[in-house]
Amino acid sequence: MKFCSTCGSDNLTKRIPEGDTLPRIVCGNCDAIHYQNPRIVVGTLPVWEEKVLLCKRAIEPRYGLWTLPAGFLENGETVEQGALRETLEEANARVALGDLYTMISLLHVHQVYMMYRAQLSDLDFGPGTESLEVRLFTEAEIPWETLAFRTITRTLRCYFLDRKLGAFGFRSSAIDRQRKLASGQPVIPA
Amino acid sequence: MKFCSTCGSDNLTKRIPEGDTLPRIVCGNCDAIHYQNPRIVVGTLPVWEEKVLLCKRAIEPRYGLWTLPAGFLENGETVEQGALRETLEEANARVALGDLYTMISLLHVHQVYMMYRAQLSDLDFGPGTESLEVRLFTEAEIPWETLAFRTITRTLRCYFLDRKLGAFGFRSSAIDRQRKLASGQPVIPA
Repeated sequence: MKFCSTCGSDNLTKRIPEGDTLPRIVCGNCDAIHYQNPRIVVGTLPVWEEKVLLCKRAIEPRYGLWTLPAGFLENGETVEQGALRETLEEANARVALGDLYTMISLLHVHQVYMMYRAQLSDLDFGPGTESLEVRLFTEAEIPWETLAFRTITRTLRCYFLDRKLGAFGFRSSAIDRQRKLASGQPVIPA
Repeated sequence: MKFCSTCGSDNLTKRIPEGDTLPRIVCGNCDAIHYQNPRIVVGTLPVWEEKVLLCKRAIEPRYGLWTLPAGFLENGETVEQGALRETLEEANARVALGDLYTMISLLHVHQVYMMYRAQLSDLDFGPGTESLEVRLFTEAEIPWETLAFRTITRTLRCYFLDRKLGAFGFRSSAIDRQRKLASGQPVIPA
């Protein structure tokens, strides 16, 4: 943000407004306070028999890497509607939505991932405009080295572990790349 | 948004960018696309024996009405950290966080509420700067007519029902005030 979206001034400073506890972008011309908050990424882990559906990304970031269908929640839709929409857009796939499965606070990029388990309704799927390829993978076939995001790696690792355990609990966790880089130690392994 | 936050121009239009599916605010001067997405509200339902803690709001909107401690998730914190922070800020209350309990997509105001069950650690609570009063209520004492938000009413109704049933499942739902007003019928009763 370089200009105030309320008055157009470039007189922006970062300071703690009166009565607040955190620094915000404040306009020195019109006094508008510009709050910035995490965004929600919604998606699914679509399953057919013992296989999982992945999409090869046709867009940046991480062009050519594999991901679960997921994207930003839009205004005016529920979390569940967003997960279904992304699955349809990226994989042309229809699913029966299951339980909310992983929630991952991505601290360094200000995102919260919310991934649902889902059952594919049919095998009539294929790449949407944001995917190069869509296919089903057994656990042994998962391309762990070319997955697009650590949230996806973690969700898949949880899934295959929980499948062996025979129970899928709700799993909430966090990833903080800044802290990992600072200390040289991963906070939570992916 | 009246001015582009990237270049300061007032030449903003709402249109569907190429390759997108939804209308966005687009700058006619620098081509910046300004996405707008739902924000997350996090909070707790703090319990002590058979009583529930509520806060009387000292700020607008809904000044003087009762609420559970909750507020916007901030950049750089996990969902759980946000819920604990809001509980401390609004009620000076320390809690042991339990399971994520209700998630409510508030379609008309572009918010997603995420409320956790929580056990008060002690009775040393009291109003923070955003509260006029903080106290414990039995189910019979809950001021249903002067609760601040429908999300709070719903979370409390779920809680007292589930407590009778003896099991607290995760409950995801939606509220769409626009549709309620349009049809004259509540989509989901509060």
